[in-house]
Amino acid sequence: MTDRIDRKLEELGLTLPQAAAPVASYVPTVLANGMLHISGQLPFKDGALVTGRVGASDDGGVSLEDAQEAAKLCALMLVAQMKAALGTLGRVERIVKLGVFVNSTGDFTDQPKVANGASDLMVALFGDAGKHARSAVGVPVLPLGAAVEIDAIVQVSA
Amino acid sequence: MTDRIDRKLEELGLTLPQAAAPVASYVPTVLANGMLHISGQLPFKDGALVTGRVGASDDGGVSLEDAQEAAKLCALMLVAQMKAALGTLGRVERIVKLGVFVNSTGDFTDQPKVANGASDLMVALFGDAGKHARSAVGVPVLPLGAAVEIDAIVQVSA
Amino acid sequence: MTDRIDRKLEELGLTLPQAAAPVASYVPTVLANGMLHISGQLPFKDGALVTGRVGASDDGGVSLEDAQEAAKLCALMLVAQMKAALGTLGRVERIVKLGVFVNSTGDFTDQPKVANGASDLMVALFGDAGKHARSAVGVPVLPLGAAVEIDAIVQVSA
Repeated sequence: MTDRIDRKLEELGLTLPQAAAPVASYVPTVLANGMLHISGQLPFKDGALVTGRVGASDDGGVSLEDAQEAAKLCALMLVAQMKAALGTLGRVERIVKLGVFVNSTGDFTDQPKVANGASDLMVALFGDAGKHARSAVGVPVLPLGAAVEIDAIVQVSA
Repeated sequence: MTDRIDRKLEELGLTLPQAAAPVASYVPTVLANGMLHISGQLPFKDGALVTGRVGASDDGGVSLEDAQEAAKLCALMLVAQMKAALGTLGRVERIVKLGVFVNSTGDFTDQPKVANGASDLMVALFGDAGKHARSAVGVPVLPLGAAVEIDAIVQVSA
Repeated sequence: MTDRIDRKLEELGLTLPQAAAPVASYVPTVLANGMLHISGQLPFKDGALVTGRVGASDDGGVSLEDAQEAAKLCALMLVAQMKAALGTLGRVERIVKLGVFVNSTGDFTDQPKVANGASDLMVALFGDAGKHARSAVGVPVLPLGAAVEIDAIVQVSA
């Protein structure tokens, strides 16, 4: 089923990834009392995980730009999970909250700029309904070495 | 009061710990709009906190297996808090979300495997109602040196 | 509009800061299904961000006392955001959950004591309605070098 948000994705030249199966024994989404809770999503580009630490100058380092792109890829995966759970993105009433974890060195402090990669996509796709509350923090390491992990709470209509 | 979940705990050879008092000036649980929010729980074994960093090779190091056990102990404490708050575990409708923080070295990237220690217990106890959304991240340190901390959101019936 | 909580603030000698604009492309608060989700707030004192790492002995180090004060400043900013979003603090039914992230060295394990700076303020202001669930974890770095970041979920009346 194609809806307004699907057309917006197309306009933006974006394709939803295959909604990722959990890395472990849990589920990607739980819908309870009208709120969809989405598990932490990792950034995949053409099926490959984007790994590395933002701020590191060695081989495992990720630039700010690449980290923003990783955050956008996490957001795209969040949207893919919404579609898989809801059938249609037309049921998304509001992106309520994003929890953004950035794999960071101890002196990288631009987590908000990284997180904008995700936030900007939500607003580009959903407009005012995409405007969300957010926390963004640095962490020393993420699952499988991912550069960014983002979870979400989304208000949905029946 | 003994219910189905209590019997399942017994079948699994598990005993709920004494629901831990907060380390500080807050409360273990808040029930609001049908959702029980549970404070971050630490892993206690026979009353002693399980401490250490996963991935460290020195004295303070914790193996993957011990970290999984620590996550299971956090989950058991979450269940103890549910019972203390609700009176009976029969009121648990759905484990909605677990937030898993793993005390990790910078090169330990198996946080999902650690978190499975908690996730597997929830499914073993509650079946489909135990299947939850989850985020799992590495952190450099946790309260009192704990190896794992897990908070939760649980949907409950009146 | 002045209400009971405003008077309590005055009694405590506290002034609400200007509700901070987001550092980035998101919004400070989202109200959905009777719950106000507040973005992660940073500690500002007289308009200046309180930065540094708790436990560090060098120039960038923050003492436990200063970190508790920083947590209190985050809480004060959360309250400022509630007032900005709700018009009056009289609509606050319950502080449901605080998520506390403390910029910590790897051997600082008193995150709960730091977080008490925020928890104590909520209880001082809102009484029983201020008693909340909480998680408190260490992180290696926070946006703009902040010492503490706290997000919140608040139950509100119509």
